[in-house]
Amino acid sequence: MENFVYERCTKIIFGKETEKLVGREVKKFAKKIMLLYGMGSIKESGLFDTVLKSLKNEGIEVIEHGGVRPNPTLNFAREAIKIAKEKKVEMILAVGGGSVIDTAKAIALGAKYSGDVWDFAEKKAIATEALPVGVILTIPAAGSESSQYSVLTNEDGPYPLKRDVIVENNQLIRPQFAILNPVLTFTLPPFQTACGVSDILAHVMERYFTNVKDVDLTDRLCEATMKTVINNGLIVMKEPENYSARAEVMWAGSIAHNDLLATGRAGDFASHMIEHELSGNYDIAHGAGLSIIFPAWMKYVYKYNVARFAQFAARVWNVDDNFFSPEAMALEGINRITNFYKELGLPTTLKEAKIPAVRFEEMAEKAVKLGNIKKTNAEDIVEIYKLSVG
Amino acid sequence: MENFVYERCTKIIFGKETEKLVGREVKKFAKKIMLLYGMGSIKESGLFDTVLKSLKNEGIEVIEHGGVRPNPTLNFAREAIKIAKEKKVEMILAVGGGSVIDTAKAIALGAKYSGDVWDFAEKKAIATEALPVGVILTIPAAGSESSQYSVLTNEDGPYPLKRDVIVENNQLIRPQFAILNPVLTFTLPPFQTACGVSDILAHVMERYFTNVKDVDLTDRLCEATMKTVINNGLIVMKEPENYSARAEVMWAGSIAHNDLLATGRAGDFASHMIEHELSGNYDIAHGAGLSIIFPAWMKYVYKYNVARFAQFAARVWNVDDNFFSPEAMALEGINRITNFYKELGLPTTLKEAKIPAVRFEEMAEKAVKLGNIKKTNAEDIVEIYKLSVG
Repeated sequence: MENFVYERCTKIIFGKETEKLVGREVKKFAKKIMLLYGMGSIKESGLFDTVLKSLKNEGIEVIEHGGVRPNPTLNFAREAIKIAKEKKVEMILAVGGGSVIDTAKAIALGAKYSGDVWDFAEKKAIATEALPVGVILTIPAAGSESSQYSVLTNEDGPYPLKRDVIVENNQLIRPQFAILNPVLTFTLPPFQTACGVSDILAHVMERYFTNVKDVDLTDRLCEATMKTVINNGLIVMKEPENYSARAEVMWAGSIAHNDLLATGRAGDFASHMIEHELSGNYDIAHGAGLSIIFPAWMKYVYKYNVARFAQFAARVWNVDDNFFSPEAMALEGINRITNFYKELGLPTTLKEAKIPAVRFEEMAEKAVKLGNIKKTNAEDIVEIYKLSVG
Repeated sequence: MENFVYERCTKIIFGKETEKLVGREVKKFAKKIMLLYGMGSIKESGLFDTVLKSLKNEGIEVIEHGGVRPNPTLNFAREAIKIAKEKKVEMILAVGGGSVIDTAKAIALGAKYSGDVWDFAEKKAIATEALPVGVILTIPAAGSESSQYSVLTNEDGPYPLKRDVIVENNQLIRPQFAILNPVLTFTLPPFQTACGVSDILAHVMERYFTNVKDVDLTDRLCEATMKTVINNGLIVMKEPENYSARAEVMWAGSIAHNDLLATGRAGDFASHMIEHELSGNYDIAHGAGLSIIFPAWMKYVYKYNVARFAQFAARVWNVDDNFFSPEAMALEGINRITNFYKELGLPTTLKEAKIPAVRFEEMAEKAVKLGNIKKTNAEDIVEIYKLSVG
């Protein structure tokens, strides 16, 4: 086990009707806020009115700002930062999923910074201040509600760049509170639900796949979370209004990405970076990109740690022990996760996603190079793209 | 799953040589502190000098206060509160195990309160202020390093009363930081190590045993933690200087009691309360009291939720499925945990602990009445004591 520091201060308020408590929580931080949201579904569902009422009851002034899109852009954040500065808002309240929350974090940083917020992504500057961020979560997926991450796409250059706005102080833009009501996820379309399940599972796998030894507790916590996501992920696809299953997926989504599961171990994260090039370039949903990349990545790297992939197969996918051939177990595990993605209705090949088998070298060159099972270089990444063609 | 609020802000600093960072952490909160410790083993081990050096390097003034005993007393805390007030210390740094940390929390509360700190235990007053508390943990057991609990024994009355100093705001006395270096636990005597393992396992079981339904994720997180504690608990008994195993036990000890494992579910906690009467009256170690009470409690209550006890047997103790008799599985699970306690060298009956089979009615009357599998009344508790005689 490696040394670590673990500090996670997001207050999670979980359960039915909890969105009605938002005014009380916001009031602890601000009197004037930017209420950030996406494409307007929160207005159709009535959530917007509920939130506004709770805020008004506490006398909070609200600057409404909608229009965040999936794979959110730097330019949208820049515009919102301008407004946040002009209006002197004191907090950003994100009502939505990962795209809205990631954008809110960037706005929170930018509002306290005189330069361009992309400076942080390019490591040209170190963030030292930010407005507080609050969250009402509507899509369990990105885990952004209790993470320090903010991923934006910069479309200014010759090709889009999807990057994390890096914050060294990992409490700086971690949300102060996150309200999670599983009922708000009942109306998510099946594809979006499936993409969320895929993203959550991926966040655990990125931490699970490591060559670091003696990580028994976190291995088992990861396996516990994966089994929960898999079992309940299949239920929510069939029963979108099953509260219990929605609740399991939603809470697992936060735990998957708040780094408890990474304590004492280095994660892999190659797949996430390889996928970012797909969704940055082709505007495929992140979760659907992951269901394509993960099986290919696994096929390419499992030989670097057969024991770990065999353990994954046994403990997560209930593959029978085969001590004569752990490799056979590893491969059966990869087979089962591929079938799981299919059962969710997600693509497992580029062909199914109608993404052309081109520009692999270009994307591999651009991709952030990470990896712990194997640090993937550009050639590795090209091979992984090839394995994902189908 | 039930609604919940989850907020845990203790900064965990985990790993080798981390105690050298204490000055830097303390400095964020205070210039003058009370350094609280137990019976002096930290002076023999050299830890005291390391800590003092780190504090002095940051220019922190230290009021040293030792002498906290196992099953710490209210009167000791009262004395220390007087000193803390006189010396105007700004933080309490606990260097030790649960007894030291629990006492530090009580001092932190008392130093900011004009009345008697026991008022909080008796719910005569609500705590609103406290000094910050920092921790260097030397005994993984109580989980006090990231919990809001402070259990003291009041010896003033006709018989000792072991009670929690209740704090409604659950962040108030939760430590600001906790430094966990598994190397510091290498020198723990075997019996103390075993008691710690027993206490940690008990903290998970208290949360695991519930009649609340649809708690899939937290069930599995509990099982992950229990399996880790069981596997590594046996290793540390045989190999006291096995860093990995000590690390697993130490980190599990915090997770067991910081309430992550209780999110969305009500725990039982009857066994803890029944045991408190034992260790409050007979000065037996808490962990050794738990290894006596838990098997007896299980035998008495398993019939109220056979499915849960069968799941416990299967998932935690690898008992083979027996769908024709889940009850047989439940009993085999109880058998295995009893054998586990024996393997740790802990007593599993009052007789082994040389506690006389008397005063059951009196202790049952005094015991705090809790329970979720079954809310235990005085008669139940007497029966449980009887089952523990051996």
